[in-house]
Amino acid sequence: MKTRTPPTLNVPCAGCKRLRRKCTADCIFVPYFPATEPEKFAEVHRVFGASNVTKMLRDIPVSQRGDAVSSLVFEARTRLKDPVYGCVSTMAALQHQVNQLQAELLAARAENASLGAQLSEVMLLLSTVTPRASTSAQSLEAGNSVDVAITSAFDRCYSPGPIVS
Amino acid sequence: MKTRTPPTLNVPCAGCKRLRRKCTADCIFVPYFPATEPEKFAEVHRVFGASNVTKMLRDIPVSQRGDAVSSLVFEARTRLKDPVYGCVSTMAALQHQVNQLQAELLAARAENASLGAQLSEVMLLLSTVTPRASTSAQSLEAGNSVDVAITSAFDRCYSPGPIVS
Repeated sequence: MKTRTPPTLNVPCAGCKRLRRKCTADCIFVPYFPATEPEKFAEVHRVFGASNVTKMLRDIPVSQRGDAVSSLVFEARTRLKDPVYGCVSTMAALQHQVNQLQAELLAARAENASLGAQLSEVMLLLSTVTPRASTSAQSLEAGNSVDVAITSAFDRCYSPGPIVS
Repeated sequence: MKTRTPPTLNVPCAGCKRLRRKCTADCIFVPYFPATEPEKFAEVHRVFGASNVTKMLRDIPVSQRGDAVSSLVFEARTRLKDPVYGCVSTMAALQHQVNQLQAELLAARAENASLGAQLSEVMLLLSTVTPRASTSAQSLEAGNSVDVAITSAFDRCYSPGPIVS
């Protein structure tokens, strides 16, 4: 019994064109390496090799092959730009940024805690010399405006909203 | 004139052992793929192919080849663990962490600014009702202890140290 061979494509994919071979309808590269983007295949071929890329794609479900090709192209491109570190240098830079941001966040939170403590301390002292708005209405008329302003500030400051934790 | 061939090694490197070939003293893999760590070569061979690794190493100065091998082993290992995304998934996770930390830092700094503004406002109001320590010494004895405590808090709070910017 004769096996039916898949039809040859008139326009080969970028992979088959580069490898100078006939491109058929069932070629694994066809959906991901169109002839219009020859550099995509050239890059993964130079870094991973066509045979390794074929093996890797065969081991991945069809629904995920597009993502796999994108990540392979990205890695290959980065390796060609930086032959010593490849995308590991990008990862190191990101890790450095994470460490720096974590340190800045820690400092900002410490500053937050310090400001919050100072504010509490001042409000506590203020409460010992300034009667609350409820009682201030009965105080001497001359002191009223400042007293109410302080009480209002007191109320605002004692509910400053959640401190970022 | 006969070219002198480099001596064959008794213990081949992991690369030559896997490729079943004679390993010589000038083999490019020898310094980086010792026979004691066969998995290192196996991993880069599966992902990049021995021929591509050889080409990549030849194009890199000897002083940087060790770093290049380390980054290739890392990339290969990550690709074997995650065949779809390889180390791109680690990069995406780090980028996500950076975005999250930046948002948290922004919120913490906004909270800092708000607390700082509240503190300034309260201290300003406090200064209108409480004389400074320099003048408080001349005030009535009964008011002195609270007044000095507030002035001391005032001085502390008006120089709370640099706010993280």
